[in-house]
Amino acid sequence: MPPIDFWFSIGSTYTYLSVMRLPGVARRTGQRFVWRPFDVRRIMVAQNNIPFRDKPVKAAYMWRDIARRAAARGLAPALPAPYPLEHLTFANQVALLGMREGWGEAYVTETYRRWFEAGEPAGAEPNLSASLRAIGEEPDGIRAAATEPAIAEALIAETDRARDLGVFGAPSFVVGAEVFWGDDRLEDALDWARHGTLRHLAGEPY
Amino acid sequence: MPPIDFWFSIGSTYTYLSVMRLPGVARRTGQRFVWRPFDVRRIMVAQNNIPFRDKPVKAAYMWRDIARRAAARGLAPALPAPYPLEHLTFANQVALLGMREGWGEAYVTETYRRWFEAGEPAGAEPNLSASLRAIGEEPDGIRAAATEPAIAEALIAETDRARDLGVFGAPSFVVGAEVFWGDDRLEDALDWARHGTLRHLAGEPY
Repeated sequence: MPPIDFWFSIGSTYTYLSVMRLPGVARRTGQRFVWRPFDVRRIMVAQNNIPFRDKPVKAAYMWRDIARRAAARGLAPALPAPYPLEHLTFANQVALLGMREGWGEAYVTETYRRWFEAGEPAGAEPNLSASLRAIGEEPDGIRAAATEPAIAEALIAETDRARDLGVFGAPSFVVGAEVFWGDDRLEDALDWARHGTLRHLAGEPY
Repeated sequence: MPPIDFWFSIGSTYTYLSVMRLPGVARRTGQRFVWRPFDVRRIMVAQNNIPFRDKPVKAAYMWRDIARRAAARGLAPALPAPYPLEHLTFANQVALLGMREGWGEAYVTETYRRWFEAGEPAGAEPNLSASLRAIGEEPDGIRAAATEPAIAEALIAETDRARDLGVFGAPSFVVGAEVFWGDDRLEDALDWARHGTLRHLAGEPY
């Protein structure tokens, strides 16, 4: 079973749904996910893809859609969450550093929880320090390390890699050459990794 | 069980997936769907919502996403289909007339089949006449009747009604005050009509 690359950006709203369920899915299925933070805004601006900022009706729908789906999964976010994030790039630099050092998934989960459930924007205080302390990490050293050129450049390189794969939004699940965009395509990606076809659509509940 | 309003526009790509499966879903579930054509382009232009025309990467993904999902459901579209449709408004005027006269669903299904499987743009020849003849209707009278002011105005009125409900894209499934956007939200709409919650998400295959 090939691994699934989970391309995400802290700053993407639907990524909340994926971050909250991915550990459980991985445990139940044995599927390996590689968490790969990137700067989705960099790609979307370059591709003239502005999904919500100038579209209030679509944005209101997005929050309602997330609220309904979160509730069905036992989550209780306080929506709308602060959006867009001012410090999206920095939040993902921290995530990238964390992926290298082994605390990335815990940080991403905790910072999303605080962003969506406590209303604290990710990538800013008090979310950053509280999230890091909650997972046993020391904020000061990480804040400095995450803005060093090596990490900033690595995030840009990962973003270019995502773009070259055809990723244009977050979250995206990549299996070989196939891109699956959106939390609602996670099942497609899992099926593809196993069967090379979307078997679950033949067994839809209706 | 309340009826589900199926707001669609011939011209929407993902609507192909819904049109092709809705009759089977209705039969298996007993769910009543009210097919309501509207002019999605009118709403999207007003809301500055241009999903694909200036976004080649996202458009390429959309076709691949539809191809994978269509294949899983036993469909064999020839993609990409001609897009965007030049005569979107007219195609939906014909659909609205057909809904009033009882041949609307058959026309919509047939015109989508020719658009997606034979590469003939909907709302234009040869698709229009061939689709109507295939369902036993005479094209000439319908072409004239569909452009009469009463039908043109009725399509605008339905479009305004959709917009007032919060519909911003097609297909949309509306259950009471809840909008579910996209073919991939049909299960959510069915669950909502039955349970007022998205029960199927608790029984996801993974």
